[in-house]
Amino acid sequence: MLLRDAVGKELRAARVAQSRTLRDVARDARVSLGYLSEVERGQKEASSELLASICTALNIQLSTLLGDVSSQIAKNEKTTLTVVTSDAA
Amino acid sequence: MLLRDAVGKELRAARVAQSRTLRDVARDARVSLGYLSEVERGQKEASSELLASICTALNIQLSTLLGDVSSQIAKNEKTTLTVVTSDAA
Repeated sequence: MLLRDAVGKELRAARVAQSRTLRDVARDARVSLGYLSEVERGQKEASSELLASICTALNIQLSTLLGDVSSQIAKNEKTTLTVVTSDAA
Repeated sequence: MLLRDAVGKELRAARVAQSRTLRDVARDARVSLGYLSEVERGQKEASSELLASICTALNIQLSTLLGDVSSQIAKNEKTTLTVVTSDAA
């Protein structure tokens, strides 16, 4: 899982949890609606400056977002482990 | 503190902890030495793909790096809190 996919997913989850529209958050963050939409879908890398603006618009700390992103990616890393089955029966 | 500054700092710390050169890690990650150097100094945003390559070259999980980045940024967020002193004496 790429960083931008996990960041987009967490940003979208935070926005939806607040029942806010793309338009609302994009306006508060001073980014275009298209930009925010692409970032949420993992289609665009958010610059560090605009990521900070989006976090401010969502009233979340960047550190909190990245903690959630880290957990999201860790979950994904675990599911790519090879499952070893035992021969004992 | 911006994301790219914290990412650069943690990547540099991981490389230095392994006593490896920029040249060595850049070669393993298949990025140019100049690119890695700029990323480490927070002067360039690493793309998600190249960040994944650099983590692989350093033998660290992306989730671990981001956990450290989150802690780094959280420390910085805390130091920006206003200190309230008491009048009681």
